[in-house]
Amino acid sequence: MNVKTGGRSRRFRTVEFNAARNEVQLIEQRLLPHEFKIVAMKDYRETARGISDMIVRGAGAIGATAAFGLAQGALAFRGGDRDAFARQVAKVYRVLAEARPTAVDPVNAMNDMLSAMERGGTVSQKKALALRSARAFADEDVAHCEAIGRHGAKLIREGMRVLTHCNAGWLAFVDVGSATAPLYAAQAQGRNFHVFCDETRPRSQGSTLTAWELAQQGVSHEIIADNAAGHLMQRGEIDLVIVGSDRVVGRTGEVANKIGTYTKAVLADRHGIPFYVAIPLSTIDWNLACGGEIPIEERDEAEVLGAWGVTRRGRREYVRVANPGSGARNPGFDVTPPELIAGIVTPAGVFKPESLWRRRSRLGFHGRFT
Amino acid sequence: MNVKTGGRSRRFRTVEFNAARNEVQLIEQRLLPHEFKIVAMKDYRETARGISDMIVRGAGAIGATAAFGLAQGALAFRGGDRDAFARQVAKVYRVLAEARPTAVDPVNAMNDMLSAMERGGTVSQKKALALRSARAFADEDVAHCEAIGRHGAKLIREGMRVLTHCNAGWLAFVDVGSATAPLYAAQAQGRNFHVFCDETRPRSQGSTLTAWELAQQGVSHEIIADNAAGHLMQRGEIDLVIVGSDRVVGRTGEVANKIGTYTKAVLADRHGIPFYVAIPLSTIDWNLACGGEIPIEERDEAEVLGAWGVTRRGRREYVRVANPGSGARNPGFDVTPPELIAGIVTPAGVFKPESLWRRRSRLGFHGRFT
Repeated sequence: MNVKTGGRSRRFRTVEFNAARNEVQLIEQRLLPHEFKIVAMKDYRETARGISDMIVRGAGAIGATAAFGLAQGALAFRGGDRDAFARQVAKVYRVLAEARPTAVDPVNAMNDMLSAMERGGTVSQKKALALRSARAFADEDVAHCEAIGRHGAKLIREGMRVLTHCNAGWLAFVDVGSATAPLYAAQAQGRNFHVFCDETRPRSQGSTLTAWELAQQGVSHEIIADNAAGHLMQRGEIDLVIVGSDRVVGRTGEVANKIGTYTKAVLADRHGIPFYVAIPLSTIDWNLACGGEIPIEERDEAEVLGAWGVTRRGRREYVRVANPGSGARNPGFDVTPPELIAGIVTPAGVFKPESLWRRRSRLGFHGRFT
Repeated sequence: MNVKTGGRSRRFRTVEFNAARNEVQLIEQRLLPHEFKIVAMKDYRETARGISDMIVRGAGAIGATAAFGLAQGALAFRGGDRDAFARQVAKVYRVLAEARPTAVDPVNAMNDMLSAMERGGTVSQKKALALRSARAFADEDVAHCEAIGRHGAKLIREGMRVLTHCNAGWLAFVDVGSATAPLYAAQAQGRNFHVFCDETRPRSQGSTLTAWELAQQGVSHEIIADNAAGHLMQRGEIDLVIVGSDRVVGRTGEVANKIGTYTKAVLADRHGIPFYVAIPLSTIDWNLACGGEIPIEERDEAEVLGAWGVTRRGRREYVRVANPGSGARNPGFDVTPPELIAGIVTPAGVFKPESLWRRRSRLGFHGRFT
């Protein structure tokens, strides 16, 4: 999507691959929103560190980063020995998979690449197939997000005020994003609307990443404290809620997403405001029996006890806000039940959450459990 | 209440008066929770600045500060000329009233003092009456909070997990507090319980002031992001909610309080968790027809866009967290309807919010409109 840099607006993807230099190029997301910088990862180990150090984050984005990292490691192999090449690829795979062990996208993307590479006879053919399938993975991620945008854009009517929570934007994917896709599509169709970005404490992804994205794209928006959405709904100032998700339970339609999502769904329900969840199909987990099986990560209490920002002197600093003698609870995610969700916006269309299981074959699930 | 200072626990009030030195002594609340310091206001103008600069905040606390400031200004008068004394008192009154023009407590407290001083014949008698009635105001504020504690303590049963929002603690009154009064009373009765302090963005009064208070008092507590309460309720980890209020509409039972209070009430209602509001009787506004008449202050967007805290080097700093190109909405308060409130805990007992108007004579309203 667009980034204003050097006085003009240019298009970027979160992850790009420069085959001539054999470099993976990442937006350095840890500097956002205060600084925009592209960093070049010169070998697959650097690319793996880009994932583990969170230069890049978000399911689709780290999937594509791992895919390009595997291609990068394959392309760096010298010689024609297929066994040595296979050993190199296996090592690269392991390093990239271990960069974010809980994530499923990097492994899925790399597994597809390994299958594709089997079709090549020589090392050189295998290298070409690796590069082609990594590019295909990234392009498919973008195509899925664009399809979410096509289906979701219909929900955004002229003049609407839309609430979103956390960041399920293009920075979390290769481009376009999930929760943001309908917004960008509606904007492209010429509609005017206004977005309220929940700050999304404790990590403030809404006031940092989502607000940055919307500002770059010229979408009208304001940040609000997480506490303010209820009041705005009560006053009739919010017409629609769209969020992303980390995991949707295919059997039940329950939605795991950033802490605070459930609260917004409860508020929206009370006020009769439709609450939508936008996801690629890879977010649907067909294995779980119910949302209670989703492990809720308890994160570092320092996130709740303080904040990262830039001082008046321009230095990036963590400040301790809370009482020094107190501790914190910091659950990272919550689970929203299907009865609070108007629809799940996917690349295959908009579905009632309770209908996912019935429609599972259309949603790409064919009885295989991973 | 207790403050741990110099290695031991000592009792303090938010506002105290040293008659021998003619000084108003305030806890410097702007340094909390990072530093505890008492500042002495040496004349009534300094005392007024203590109010306007927010060294002291909270309805009861600034009422008592103004009362002591008026006594301080009266006591500083030299000579026996009653007319000159009356002019001096009028000037002191004006300076103190203007220190926080929207607050009602300072003016109410000082009006009561002027009535009391009329009973004195000489300047010296009037001075003595000023001091006595200022002390009476402060002591009455404490007595009211203690009465809230007696009635509210019954709500806190052994092992309960209690959620509170913002700070309606002793720092906002002369001592004891409103929402905290039932907690401190239950603690004094030997009951064990745990408090979750909502951070209360954007100004974080929960993670700073309430957490500091509870830590000083040795009450088991943890801070949570405002986003986390819904999840904890869903998991059955919250048994009771108690908050304070800035204004309760006597006719309808609607409760205006810090932004985010309404959200917690909606969540509590969904989970069948009782939601209580603890207030002194002076918080009830008998004049408004409904909560819609309460003006909701839109505060400085900088509060939402960043945070105040202490850097790793120990310097107090504001950091900009949010995207530099984005603005914010910052409503300071919201209004919770009576159907979400289990009861209003007052010094006169616990009342259903809808019953306030019917019980108004018992609650101190006798048909006078202010």
